[in-house]
Amino acid sequence: MYKLRVVQSGKQYDYEPGASLLEILLAQNIFIDNPCNGKGVCGKCKVRIVSGEVGEVSSTELRFLKPEEVKSGVRLSCMVHPQCDLEVELMQKERKHEVLSKGYVPKFEKDLDIVKQIVNIHKPLLTDQTPFEDQIKEQLSDVEFPFSVLRGFCFKEGSYTAVIHREKDGKKVLMDLEEGDTTDSMYGIAIDIGTTTVVTALIDMLTGKELADSSMINAQKHFGLDVLTRITYEMEHPKEGVQALKEAIVASINEMIADVCGQTGVKKEQIYEVSVGANCTMMHMLLGVDALSIGKSPYAPMFVKAKDIEAEEIGIHASRGARLYCLPSVSSYIGADIVAGAYVCELHKADENVLFIDIGTNGEIVFSDHGRLLSCSCAAGPALEGMNISSGMRAAEGAIEDVEIKEDGVKLKIIGNADPIGVCGSGILAVVKELVRTGLVRKDGAFIKLKNLEETDYRYPMIEMDGIKRQFKMTEDLKITQGDVRQVQLAKGAILSGFYALLKKAGKEMSELDKVMIAGQFGAHLPADSLIGTGILPAEVKDKLVYVGNSSKTGAYMALLSGQVKREMEELAHHMDYMELGATEGYERLFADCLMFPEVH
Amino acid sequence: MYKLRVVQSGKQYDYEPGASLLEILLAQNIFIDNPCNGKGVCGKCKVRIVSGEVGEVSSTELRFLKPEEVKSGVRLSCMVHPQCDLEVELMQKERKHEVLSKGYVPKFEKDLDIVKQIVNIHKPLLTDQTPFEDQIKEQLSDVEFPFSVLRGFCFKEGSYTAVIHREKDGKKVLMDLEEGDTTDSMYGIAIDIGTTTVVTALIDMLTGKELADSSMINAQKHFGLDVLTRITYEMEHPKEGVQALKEAIVASINEMIADVCGQTGVKKEQIYEVSVGANCTMMHMLLGVDALSIGKSPYAPMFVKAKDIEAEEIGIHASRGARLYCLPSVSSYIGADIVAGAYVCELHKADENVLFIDIGTNGEIVFSDHGRLLSCSCAAGPALEGMNISSGMRAAEGAIEDVEIKEDGVKLKIIGNADPIGVCGSGILAVVKELVRTGLVRKDGAFIKLKNLEETDYRYPMIEMDGIKRQFKMTEDLKITQGDVRQVQLAKGAILSGFYALLKKAGKEMSELDKVMIAGQFGAHLPADSLIGTGILPAEVKDKLVYVGNSSKTGAYMALLSGQVKREMEELAHHMDYMELGATEGYERLFADCLMFPEVH
Repeated sequence: MYKLRVVQSGKQYDYEPGASLLEILLAQNIFIDNPCNGKGVCGKCKVRIVSGEVGEVSSTELRFLKPEEVKSGVRLSCMVHPQCDLEVELMQKERKHEVLSKGYVPKFEKDLDIVKQIVNIHKPLLTDQTPFEDQIKEQLSDVEFPFSVLRGFCFKEGSYTAVIHREKDGKKVLMDLEEGDTTDSMYGIAIDIGTTTVVTALIDMLTGKELADSSMINAQKHFGLDVLTRITYEMEHPKEGVQALKEAIVASINEMIADVCGQTGVKKEQIYEVSVGANCTMMHMLLGVDALSIGKSPYAPMFVKAKDIEAEEIGIHASRGARLYCLPSVSSYIGADIVAGAYVCELHKADENVLFIDIGTNGEIVFSDHGRLLSCSCAAGPALEGMNISSGMRAAEGAIEDVEIKEDGVKLKIIGNADPIGVCGSGILAVVKELVRTGLVRKDGAFIKLKNLEETDYRYPMIEMDGIKRQFKMTEDLKITQGDVRQVQLAKGAILSGFYALLKKAGKEMSELDKVMIAGQFGAHLPADSLIGTGILPAEVKDKLVYVGNSSKTGAYMALLSGQVKREMEELAHHMDYMELGATEGYERLFADCLMFPEVH
Repeated sequence: MYKLRVVQSGKQYDYEPGASLLEILLAQNIFIDNPCNGKGVCGKCKVRIVSGEVGEVSSTELRFLKPEEVKSGVRLSCMVHPQCDLEVELMQKERKHEVLSKGYVPKFEKDLDIVKQIVNIHKPLLTDQTPFEDQIKEQLSDVEFPFSVLRGFCFKEGSYTAVIHREKDGKKVLMDLEEGDTTDSMYGIAIDIGTTTVVTALIDMLTGKELADSSMINAQKHFGLDVLTRITYEMEHPKEGVQALKEAIVASINEMIADVCGQTGVKKEQIYEVSVGANCTMMHMLLGVDALSIGKSPYAPMFVKAKDIEAEEIGIHASRGARLYCLPSVSSYIGADIVAGAYVCELHKADENVLFIDIGTNGEIVFSDHGRLLSCSCAAGPALEGMNISSGMRAAEGAIEDVEIKEDGVKLKIIGNADPIGVCGSGILAVVKELVRTGLVRKDGAFIKLKNLEETDYRYPMIEMDGIKRQFKMTEDLKITQGDVRQVQLAKGAILSGFYALLKKAGKEMSELDKVMIAGQFGAHLPADSLIGTGILPAEVKDKLVYVGNSSKTGAYMALLSGQVKREMEELAHHMDYMELGATEGYERLFADCLMFPEVH
């Protein structure tokens, strides 16, 4: 067992020798870009070895390292197998705004499900031996007293604060007793669990103020980057898979709770409720429920309804008896994150025709016809998030986030103004939009043939051949291949066809659409001209786009502060219709049509 | 670590060398009489070493072992410190009826709180993705579905059996789902937890039949023989004491459940409810609640009300979601065992004046004036159970259980017709009764002076001097000392004074008493002439005695089979008044009066 220290965080970890440095870092939830999955072919997992002997630089590494990098100790972490104590400096600074935790919050009334009440225990006498329990029951006559609350107490006179939970049906249940008067403090946690990232916020439940937030890569990524791979893990590990996935995410949540508590001085014992928005698979995995049926046709989930349980039941450590509220889902692929979004965007109260879309690995779309809700989900795949793209990477320093093709060359916008090392989701969309706009990529998605361009055309030098395949040259090292374009094309076809299918089912024309709301942390980084220019969304909606941010977390936040909100979300989920695209007549034809990029005018 | 095998049970145990064989056996809950506490002076802890080398017989042992015993391998277990694998034969066969598990059961209607119902899960379709949970909820519309039941299931069509618990307020809650149709089996466990012994019975809940029983010494005895010593242990170990006491009794219960399951082939997963009668301290300790306040004036308990929780909450392993019902108590010293007894004896329905008494370390007395119940508890001490008596022992082979003093000598009745090795509780009472009857012990408890007897009196040779103290010679080796008589005197004074105080409080005369019911496993072995002859009970009640056996277990059995019984017991406990003798005016004078033995006529 050796020690690994990370310069930036100052944190120290123990590791067993054997694995690559990349694997060791990933195992500690330190995310290092590695599009090639540690095969030594992308050169993106660079770290600097500050101290510790890790052997000679290999010839593989020399292909990716500049001489000054070699000199300063930079290595490819996938090629290094350390066997000593060492100290490393991470090269990729994550963007500050990379995990979106804020967003639009509609007006609502606070209506807490947790209340506190003072009770007084008097000294017993030989002539009055009233039990401790009965003394409390007398003062809390309308409150159920679960026996477990008695544990850990001894009979002692004085003031206590009863922490009481109001259940859905109005029943009040004692959660805990606290010695003395603690009525002046009450905290809660709002969480958005994404397949990729998890965002946690500490909320002062008495004021409604967000005091601190914390975000992490979802630790379940060790079991697969997407939900299907994680479900496959459960299938292949029938005994411990469900448990392992649950423990991974719960450990992350506990770590983030410790983080926000550390930032503010709030104690975890002062946290009485945790509220969670997440997609349906994440919710199954958080709660330790088998998600296998979500992964295969006909995609029926084990549950969709909201859950209100003890947080400790799944291992989340907060106050004794602290509650965990999980927002309701609609179906396997319209999860609580979308219900939260629809609620936050007040789709159920809309007095017009509103379309809500959350773009990610899955694109979820909800259409509101004056409050009547219809939804569908499209399997877009990870291309729009920069995955499955030859030079794709996360939105971090060195990522190309915007591209312009001009007569005088290709203009790149790079996160952190650093040297470009890859292209992130918004960059991929931008470059495909530009390829389509300039005609370098045809409507059917194929690169234009060089013979169809004049050699003097400014575009001519931008296309090069890789064997028999054409590709677009962003820089000397970074290309967009035909395969990359096809990935984007499949994603955009999936989303656009869902869009059209949903409108058709609702009996509406494109012209009748009043507003299109873009949700989710990824969507927030996609400018309108990329969405329209690639044909992910039709040109007609260009001026109707509204960006709403991380509405899943906002929904969790609102539910935390109001029982009324919880009930309205449950109503909304219950009344949202879901159409399964795969079971929709003519869908395959529609999908094929939607693969076409927009006409260039 | 060596192995120890016990011939009788065939069971094998691991032990660490170092302790005496006596301590090793006790640690395994194998009870060996050892009145001198392993000091090598009573000679009662004999075992036979069947195989294994344990060293030479010591001179101490030779004082107690007959030559043929030495020859056959008999040793005093307290003097042997084994350091090898060995096999031992226990010498003291426990009496078959030693732990009383049966008793009078009044007529009652079965009214189970557990019901089973078949539900069917249909195969989902792309056009019908109804979640697993919702399919069940539709069929169990009046049943609450705790989320945890979903865990461990995957979506699979077919028949399931819903196991449903009916709560006190009539609410039905799903406990578990079982694959297939299991409606033809349902088992429960009825338990009486005594301070000394624990009795467990396996009940077929569908027929009401008791299928098997099992009993053990309460494993908490390692923390003290009586409740006060155990409470002191909790006080001295504030961090882990409560937990240690809980775990000791829960481990015993799990062991006995395994035992009754093993006897019958029933699986523990087929056990849906466990019902427990116990005194109030045992109930606190079973449930992991601090019992400190029970141990000191003013003796207010943490709780007295009935508890209905998940058995697993305290670590009792049965079916998933199995319930644990703990009968209600009245006060710290009128526990659920007494409530059970009062209920089984139908004191609440009595149409006459009935007195109920459970004689043990504490004597609990309930008086029913045509259904109006008044109770008190008397600290009798352990003398009546053969403890704190110089040659006392448990009721096991070799124990003197009855004594007659005749003109031609002292006649002994010995359990198992063996050589006498000590005197058990019923024997102690019998001999004191005889000493009083023959005038060998005076009304004030002192032995008669030898000078007051003629040397020709048949009683003369029965008294001998031990230094300046007189004692009664039962055999050459076994004596009843003045101290022994004083112990019995204190016990009888405590019980009789409680008896009188209670009658006085109820405003009744002795002559108005219609019936006296003797409960408890110890009481069942006390014949009327001992109870009356020692003055534990007044002579007037001699013809009114009724023995009811282990009514605590019977009460647990009845509660297991009927929600109606549970509610009636809770009513009974709620309406039973309790008088604290220590807070009763003139009690000390009454106690002093009651110390007197009866007049001899």
